Amino acid sequence: MTIVGELQALLGAEQVHADAVTLRAAATDTWPLRLVQSAVGGEPMPGPLCVVRPRAASEVAQALQLLYQGGVAVVPRGGGSGVQGGAEPPPGSVVLDLSNLDQILSLDEDNLSVTAQAGVRLHTLEQWLNERGYVGGHYPQSIEQAQLGGLVATRSAGQLSTRYGSIEDLLLGLAAVLPDGTALRIGATPRWAGGPDLRQLFLGSEGTLGVMTEVTLKVFPKPEATWRSAYALPSFTSGLDVMRRIMRPGWRPAVVRLYDAIETERSFPDLAERGTCLLLCAAEGPRGLPELEGAAIDSLAREVGAQPLGSAPVEAWFGHRNDVRAFYQYVQAGVIVDTIDVSVSWSCAAQVYQAVLAGLRHAVPELMVASAHASHAYPQGTSLYFVVGAQPPRDAAAVERIYRSIWSTAMQAVLANGGSICHHHGIGKLRAPWLAQQQGASLELLRQVKAALDPRGTMNPGTLLA
Amino acid sequence: MTIVGELQALLGAEQVHADAVTLRAAATDTWPLRLVQSAVGGEPMPGPLCVVRPRAASEVAQALQLLYQGGVAVVPRGGGSGVQGGAEPPPGSVVLDLSNLDQILSLDEDNLSVTAQAGVRLHTLEQWLNERGYVGGHYPQSIEQAQLGGLVATRSAGQLSTRYGSIEDLLLGLAAVLPDGTALRIGATPRWAGGPDLRQLFLGSEGTLGVMTEVTLKVFPKPEATWRSAYALPSFTSGLDVMRRIMRPGWRPAVVRLYDAIETERSFPDLAERGTCLLLCAAEGPRGLPELEGAAIDSLAREVGAQPLGSAPVEAWFGHRNDVRAFYQYVQAGVIVDTIDVSVSWSCAAQVYQAVLAGLRHAVPELMVASAHASHAYPQGTSLYFVVGAQPPRDAAAVERIYRSIWSTAMQAVLANGGSICHHHGIGKLRAPWLAQQQGASLELLRQVKAALDPRGTMNPGTLLA
Repeated sequence: MTIVGELQALLGAEQVHADAVTLRAAATDTWPLRLVQSAVGGEPMPGPLCVVRPRAASEVAQALQLLYQGGVAVVPRGGGSGVQGGAEPPPGSVVLDLSNLDQILSLDEDNLSVTAQAGVRLHTLEQWLNERGYVGGHYPQSIEQAQLGGLVATRSAGQLSTRYGSIEDLLLGLAAVLPDGTALRIGATPRWAGGPDLRQLFLGSEGTLGVMTEVTLKVFPKPEATWRSAYALPSFTSGLDVMRRIMRPGWRPAVVRLYDAIETERSFPDLAERGTCLLLCAAEGPRGLPELEGAAIDSLAREVGAQPLGSAPVEAWFGHRNDVRAFYQYVQAGVIVDTIDVSVSWSCAAQVYQAVLAGLRHAVPELMVASAHASHAYPQGTSLYFVVGAQPPRDAAAVERIYRSIWSTAMQAVLANGGSICHHHGIGKLRAPWLAQQQGASLELLRQVKAALDPRGTMNPGTLLA
Repeated sequence: MTIVGELQALLGAEQVHADAVTLRAAATDTWPLRLVQSAVGGEPMPGPLCVVRPRAASEVAQALQLLYQGGVAVVPRGGGSGVQGGAEPPPGSVVLDLSNLDQILSLDEDNLSVTAQAGVRLHTLEQWLNERGYVGGHYPQSIEQAQLGGLVATRSAGQLSTRYGSIEDLLLGLAAVLPDGTALRIGATPRWAGGPDLRQLFLGSEGTLGVMTEVTLKVFPKPEATWRSAYALPSFTSGLDVMRRIMRPGWRPAVVRLYDAIETERSFPDLAERGTCLLLCAAEGPRGLPELEGAAIDSLAREVGAQPLGSAPVEAWFGHRNDVRAFYQYVQAGVIVDTIDVSVSWSCAAQVYQAVLAGLRHAVPELMVASAHASHAYPQGTSLYFVVGAQPPRDAAAVERIYRSIWSTAMQAVLANGGSICHHHGIGKLRAPWLAQQQGASLELLRQVKAALDPRGTMNPGTLLA
């Protein structure tokens, strides 16, 4: 019997799909390279052997056990919103789609947590929490598409992470299935000192070490108050300095977000003067706190010459922050548009910013535009989120060559100037070649863990570890 | 040649000690069981073959490589302040004492971090930071004795962790040596989404997966302002409810600490009325924030009938919080005095508190006193820190029997009522038997990682994993 037949016999034919439409939809994720290649008429990716949609954790375990025994590659798939090719199945593999594990299981109001199956969409959960007086605090741009398990597996960071934390701060407990089909559960506890935090093996594992079936996340009472204000800065460097000064004393505002002059002009043409850099700040929390944080931010910003612009630019951003229609219009027209998220200390932030932009302008003749914003602030540094546009010929191979050249140029510039290659989009297949350079000998540690938990190498091969 | 001779030949005789005084000092850590057994005339523990004191990370690597090849058990040792027997060497093992890796390497004022060797004492680092205008934010009671590497290896939590975070929140980067002598470095970055967080394999590893030689930790500018106030509550349960209400809206005070009536009377006899439970609250941070948090706490506490007692009890606690002279007086007199730290959600906190105390009173005839305080607060729950005193006969075997009975009773009561067996003291040898019960199938994950990184099982055998 073929593996597809065996899966159908095991789980029932209605959980195992091998029709052309399903296979095509699972042939890649939201990797811009593939979107542009497809737009210029490139061959579609081969797709998996089939897509399995288990309805319960026990079916995940059954499927994994069968595939492990057969030595068949498995690609766990959540909402498919990843942009690094992490969920793109290699030929001959099976996609394990978690979408049917879509139940919100319980809200614990005393202990401020919610438990839900891994296939629940984040936006669904957030609405459900909002109706009950809570927020989840996790707002990545992919909120409408991404699922909880996928967000944990890719170490997601949301737009308000400076206050609420990123997914590693929000995850309390999980249930998962190991590559060989062993189910396990790591319980939620306020704090734990009993050995290494085993949840961390799933946070960022990108489907290479197992499959989460359920997660328990923190929730927060709806904030009682908010404060919002924007500022204009004469340069990106001076804006980074204001961000650093805001984070230094221990404030924890929800948003401290800086656009360079190109992005300010593109995204806020009527709200900021041409040539300035826009800094968006927002605070939220219990009554009194946002107002106090706002006053401190305002004072720190004005001290270094920032020009206050009121709350309108912040309101505009909150209103349009997840609108990606322009992105799809460009890629469907065959234009390469991509984002490159990296992590930088304050002392290398300006240098990495300049080096990446200079490198792209020098090395990529097809470049139309390269810009950046700093989207997440920490006491130790920030993220830089580069936005790159390039016009390739209408040829899939040329698209790939130019696309790889953009990434290679950016990654080398980041590494050469002291940055880290990834802030929140994960590694996928795209960034795997640079992971070794970033991690050095410590990557060997991950390889050893991978070899121990997945000795047959069946879990999402090619993703994370090249 | 013996292994001691080989180590001497490798590192020089002055780094390898096998004299009786050194061996006796390294024969256990600050495990109360051993202190009491020693006080009643019990046989001393056998001690290691020798104590190696490397002066550099390269010497740590050389020593580990040699011991790995020889299949000799290694027990990494920091300040020796552990209270669970984690650094107690089994017969025939070698102790690797990190004390000579005692250099503070650099302060990064822009990026708010400090890098130091693993053997630096926390108190030394804190003073060094204070002189430069910073604080480390990490204040466990062991601050004068504990070393940085040991604090990371045991997942330490400090007294002000509600504001500053515990060691897992403070650790930015590290250098370590794997069991086979491979050196690696995990760089500090403000945030990272490139695979699982590999630092987590060392946080809580208790010397079973490798040896840290250097750490990079967050630092904070000295707080500009502080606020302190204490409250009297009619019961421990009502005090837990106030703690929960304080944490719920998103405040982040430095201290929210509740003593039961027994401890209130014992530790604050002149500052609180007999029979009441004392709640200590403190806030610190940038000017304005502690005052605001204080006003919110004050209002929440008074709303539920807490009686304000001013700042004197908090000042008294800050002044005496690390004074452990009474503990040593008791154990030297042959009295069992121990602390049992566990982690509880808000909804099981009162039940675990009552079940542990009732269990001890029922099962341990030699019990003199059992009490508790809640020492660390989270939105999801708190720690319970039981203090237990018992009068055994002056006989080492009886001490062990009664001591084990205390722990077994407490651990079973915690597990039966939904608590977690460990908040911040680690597992060591003492708590290893209950780890499997707590972790279930997920402990297999740790066993697999251990087998992969330490296939010969030479790293601190018997600690963490029984």
